[in-house]
Amino acid sequence: MKARFGKLFVVLALVFASVSLTACSAVQHSGKLEPIVIQEQGSFTAGGTVITSPGTFDPVKMTPEGQTFHGDHVYAFYQIPEKARKLPLVFWHGYGQFSKTWETTPDGREGFQNIFLRRDYPVYLLDQPRRGNAGRSTVARTIEPVPDEQRWFNIFRVGIWPEFYPEVQFPQDQSSLEQYFRQMTPDTGPIDIDVNSDAVAALFDKIGPGVLVTHSHSGGMGWATVMKNPEIKAVVSYEPGSNFVFPEGEVPPEKNSSGGSLKPVEVPLDEFMKLTKIPIVIYYGDFIPAEPTDIPGQDMWRIRLEMARLWADAVNRHGGDATVVHLPEVGILGNTHFPFSDLNNLEIADLMSEWLAQKGLD
Amino acid sequence: MKARFGKLFVVLALVFASVSLTACSAVQHSGKLEPIVIQEQGSFTAGGTVITSPGTFDPVKMTPEGQTFHGDHVYAFYQIPEKARKLPLVFWHGYGQFSKTWETTPDGREGFQNIFLRRDYPVYLLDQPRRGNAGRSTVARTIEPVPDEQRWFNIFRVGIWPEFYPEVQFPQDQSSLEQYFRQMTPDTGPIDIDVNSDAVAALFDKIGPGVLVTHSHSGGMGWATVMKNPEIKAVVSYEPGSNFVFPEGEVPPEKNSSGGSLKPVEVPLDEFMKLTKIPIVIYYGDFIPAEPTDIPGQDMWRIRLEMARLWADAVNRHGGDATVVHLPEVGILGNTHFPFSDLNNLEIADLMSEWLAQKGLD
Repeated sequence: MKARFGKLFVVLALVFASVSLTACSAVQHSGKLEPIVIQEQGSFTAGGTVITSPGTFDPVKMTPEGQTFHGDHVYAFYQIPEKARKLPLVFWHGYGQFSKTWETTPDGREGFQNIFLRRDYPVYLLDQPRRGNAGRSTVARTIEPVPDEQRWFNIFRVGIWPEFYPEVQFPQDQSSLEQYFRQMTPDTGPIDIDVNSDAVAALFDKIGPGVLVTHSHSGGMGWATVMKNPEIKAVVSYEPGSNFVFPEGEVPPEKNSSGGSLKPVEVPLDEFMKLTKIPIVIYYGDFIPAEPTDIPGQDMWRIRLEMARLWADAVNRHGGDATVVHLPEVGILGNTHFPFSDLNNLEIADLMSEWLAQKGLD
Repeated sequence: MKARFGKLFVVLALVFASVSLTACSAVQHSGKLEPIVIQEQGSFTAGGTVITSPGTFDPVKMTPEGQTFHGDHVYAFYQIPEKARKLPLVFWHGYGQFSKTWETTPDGREGFQNIFLRRDYPVYLLDQPRRGNAGRSTVARTIEPVPDEQRWFNIFRVGIWPEFYPEVQFPQDQSSLEQYFRQMTPDTGPIDIDVNSDAVAALFDKIGPGVLVTHSHSGGMGWATVMKNPEIKAVVSYEPGSNFVFPEGEVPPEKNSSGGSLKPVEVPLDEFMKLTKIPIVIYYGDFIPAEPTDIPGQDMWRIRLEMARLWADAVNRHGGDATVVHLPEVGILGNTHFPFSDLNNLEIADLMSEWLAQKGLD
């Protein structure tokens, strides 16, 4: 009898080990990671517009007459894992960035692309119109190499250059910093909230229902896109930085900081109400001061966190479901403006996974 | 006895079926494709340079003084399949294009990225400096939306706008053409052969030995990169379009066409000799005239095919192993300037697979 229980125990232990292995597949081992099984992957563009030159095309001269120019689309690379969950995650980068935001971290660890593929979510990474691989812009632009990386180091709250914040969740070696700086890419045309939200709305027309994950500048463009397409079933927004929309008559005053002002945007109530129909969660990292400071790279985030709270209040006042999580307040310390690629990004991913599960989006 | 042979036959048939299934995993079934098992995937930048503004960074003013600008790197997204072959394939796009060249085809089929992952090759897709996701350029540039797509339709030998070539291996629906046009992206700085070949050479320093696969404009930059890094163990070049290098004293005359001239480039013999140490194969598609024509989109390829043959002769004269395959001459008809994404791209991939096998590169 004892022997038989012994065997049963071994079998159960094996079953349990195999279950935990599956559940923990996102954990990064010191050795080789488990392979990712991809049922389908590829890329496409969505949305955009066409310029047509008047006249007839001449195949000898090939001057612009009668020719077209397709631009202002969004580009997306997608991967659908085997045994995929139902709702895909659509990841939208922030200002000056592109899909790299969600790919390999500056120090070579897995970003949210791989982490959420391992958690069985279909993953779409997009480049917004006039950025990265979606570079065909219908509006001209001059791009100049203006040295600006120490500014971004501060604004992205890695530290106050050349010092890293103490206990910051960012690798401090030279090679990581170099990869971080090189993950920026310029705008090939003016940033246009309408152009961008139209294109991402067109993406959701193509792929159907999904969860939009935004970062920084795409936060506000994300709200604009939700108001254009009901296929967006939820939003996870990391450190939204602009375009906080409020219904007519409820717009709070502009906020000021040493890093510039932040003006909320008025929209008709019936548009705003679309934001109350889906669950929304917003995360902000560490090193955001509670009181005004003359360091603009910090102070600009103080007013954004304040505005995000007012915004969530407005959404909830109208029956919505918006939550603002300031990570240090839930005991998660040291995060920069890029929590999803910080050293603790698996913990940050766990938080997002739990929220998706709570909202029945998994 | 008969029954036992019967059973044996069933078993053998099953083994055979399973073997053929593996061998044909790149074949696109009308239904669902087999999943792709990825051991590792991610992205990084390589090479590039840094501009530094004199002075000291001021965290309050955040003006350019004392700030840096990292640019002119190459960006790569890579995938390593489970049970990978030894040598990765590094795919380099052509003029006006980016990694999309090798991803999903305009009509939604699998491109060389997926096809060669299915054939167990590690695959790297790069964006050259100042293009796509590698947009940080150390030299300024103005980008303007000049309608030019009918010109490219002709130069890429899809047809003579608005007519498609008869029997062309290109989908003729509107949506495919739109995706094709939208897979272009502009340069964010001037094209610089040295900058680009330096960056791709730096990529090979990072990843070690591999096979370089080039297209069109990257063909000539590929020869330049081979001369900079012996980690490139072979080159597959689709329709190389410029920078044909010849040793001192052996440079053929410039060639002229209604689509402009093509001037070969002189290099020292000891540099040229590096191109004789590795196997090289060059493919050109269909619709290239044998005699001069006043249609520049055709005629410019006539002189390139002629020059490629002179170039291969020069390489082989010095003991090298270069082959030029003009696809119609081996019975493969209808290919455009993009054979690897044409309707018959699996046949084109088979040709490349066979060549890699012949040269012991698989």
